[in-house]
Amino acid sequence: MAKKLTDIAGLGAVKLLDHITKAIEAKQPSTVKGLGDDAAVTDYNGAQTVTATALLLEGVHFDLTYTPLKHLGYKTVISAINKIYAMNAKPAQVMITAGLSQRFAVEHVEELFGGVATACTRYGLDLVDVALSTSLTGLTLGATATGAAPAAHLVYRSGGKPTDLLCLTGNLGAAYMGLQLLKREKTVFEGNSSAQPQLEGYSYILERHLKPEAQKDVIDLLAAHHLVPTAMISVSEGLAAGTLHLCKQSNCGARIYLERLPIASETFRMAGEMNLDAVVAALHGGDDFELLFTLPVTLHDVVRRELQGIDVIGHLTGAGEGAHLITPDNQTIALKAQGWTTSNEQ
Amino acid sequence: MAKKLTDIAGLGAVKLLDHITKAIEAKQPSTVKGLGDDAAVTDYNGAQTVTATALLLEGVHFDLTYTPLKHLGYKTVISAINKIYAMNAKPAQVMITAGLSQRFAVEHVEELFGGVATACTRYGLDLVDVALSTSLTGLTLGATATGAAPAAHLVYRSGGKPTDLLCLTGNLGAAYMGLQLLKREKTVFEGNSSAQPQLEGYSYILERHLKPEAQKDVIDLLAAHHLVPTAMISVSEGLAAGTLHLCKQSNCGARIYLERLPIASETFRMAGEMNLDAVVAALHGGDDFELLFTLPVTLHDVVRRELQGIDVIGHLTGAGEGAHLITPDNQTIALKAQGWTTSNEQ
Repeated sequence: MAKKLTDIAGLGAVKLLDHITKAIEAKQPSTVKGLGDDAAVTDYNGAQTVTATALLLEGVHFDLTYTPLKHLGYKTVISAINKIYAMNAKPAQVMITAGLSQRFAVEHVEELFGGVATACTRYGLDLVDVALSTSLTGLTLGATATGAAPAAHLVYRSGGKPTDLLCLTGNLGAAYMGLQLLKREKTVFEGNSSAQPQLEGYSYILERHLKPEAQKDVIDLLAAHHLVPTAMISVSEGLAAGTLHLCKQSNCGARIYLERLPIASETFRMAGEMNLDAVVAALHGGDDFELLFTLPVTLHDVVRRELQGIDVIGHLTGAGEGAHLITPDNQTIALKAQGWTTSNEQ
Repeated sequence: MAKKLTDIAGLGAVKLLDHITKAIEAKQPSTVKGLGDDAAVTDYNGAQTVTATALLLEGVHFDLTYTPLKHLGYKTVISAINKIYAMNAKPAQVMITAGLSQRFAVEHVEELFGGVATACTRYGLDLVDVALSTSLTGLTLGATATGAAPAAHLVYRSGGKPTDLLCLTGNLGAAYMGLQLLKREKTVFEGNSSAQPQLEGYSYILERHLKPEAQKDVIDLLAAHHLVPTAMISVSEGLAAGTLHLCKQSNCGARIYLERLPIASETFRMAGEMNLDAVVAALHGGDDFELLFTLPVTLHDVVRRELQGIDVIGHLTGAGEGAHLITPDNQTIALKAQGWTTSNEQ
């Protein structure tokens, strides 16, 4: 083409997605929720089913130098099913597509699918389709998960209201710091192949990166207390991107209090060792697979009393007020989405 | 690993798939059909929904040297929805994941999704999810399609009975010969960049490779005549592999008559020009997206009279009799699946 082309990095991932989907309108009677959420929702004969997909690419989403194939198979399943949980639905089936590079042997495929099977057992899923292909370019993994929920239980990104509490499961930035540790040890190893990796004392952040879990327990906990969030999203690309997506779909702003961000001690320790900022990891680090959800402010006492392991990190505000991080000395920092670096799976 | 590893090519794609899935049993009440068919079938509250996936990898499933991105986007949708039609169901939603290599500009992504949008319009689909990611290795495309059918209309690979007619839509080997032509012209071009591609007179086989269609019209035709096949499969990896899959799932053998194989004149002509065998292209060429289905032999007159464009190419036989091609001089050639060369999407 002779005409000047537009750089994707310049436009940014979110705008690119908006750009290519702006003219698209759902027209099928069976489509309940199309673009713009964690998963698609369809309704056939009154049953609401939820479908989500994930794509994991070698060199972008994983590095086989330090990623055991069994863990990778497990994580591939988690990547898809966490989006079903993010709709307050329960996954029941998973489908896997894999492009296998030439260096793969049968035993490697066994390891990979051993991890898939372990995840299926742990989360009560049927593996209902497997398609294998050769790949000339690297290992490629696709996962599709299906599940369901009663219509009244489904939670979208779009239901949040001003003053709603912003609630977060688990903690942030751990998977990112686990990844930084693995990258550091790979660099050391490449410089000196007799070096042994220094991974002691960091088992938590390593596991958060290599073998993350999906938020099944949180969905069960919410159901046990008859709580249906007003909005919810899977935080797979950092808290900033997740908050901005939720705010956009709910047409709200947000205030998040820095001192309330849950960050694990190993995450802080590793960040200190590497002269990195743990808060930046929390805001922009990927692969946490936590859920960010909103509940009416009137439920504040219930959340604090009944929802163990859930932190209230802030609240929604009116449209046009923007999404901000508030520091302990009351500075206001506008949240920004990260650039076109890894994926835009949200 | 110190122990000796098993070569995938030696085991073969079909056995590899059997190997890694042999211990898997569907356990979820909502799973109607799991592994071993074109698509998975789930039942939530009595509605049967069908989900299928496809993965297309640069260098394996397409070559960007001669594949327009708009056609590739179209074909990506077709790859997934044809599996829904192969269940005698109707697709209504499609989800696309894309790993974009660094050399992609916004305009390229627009072209790609222009093709996706065209397919959605042509087939009455909603695009309900798009996830974009960078790719370090090449363009990667994933498609997931969902659809539905009344339970009594769903057709599996497993319902065929001995004496059932083997029926085939369209014709075979055209996409494969179109691909060979494009490959030849690429080689010529690389040797002499002033050469112009010699594609005249082959528009049909080129279109069959670059912009295939899904079998919506056949599904509509069957419905119009109140015909529900006993078994059906999408022939995406050649007639041999498709027949063997259908026979295995139906626990039958098959006899296919060589002189009845529908092969287009351009396919024959191109094969002759290249000293290739058009029948080999029909048996083992990929990307035809035709449907192979079975109907009771008592419907033979109805099929011949009412189903325009459908050929009866043979019939099923008893289990243990194997799948064979019968030549005009009554030789019997056992059908074999191709090796681990491209994909094993069936």
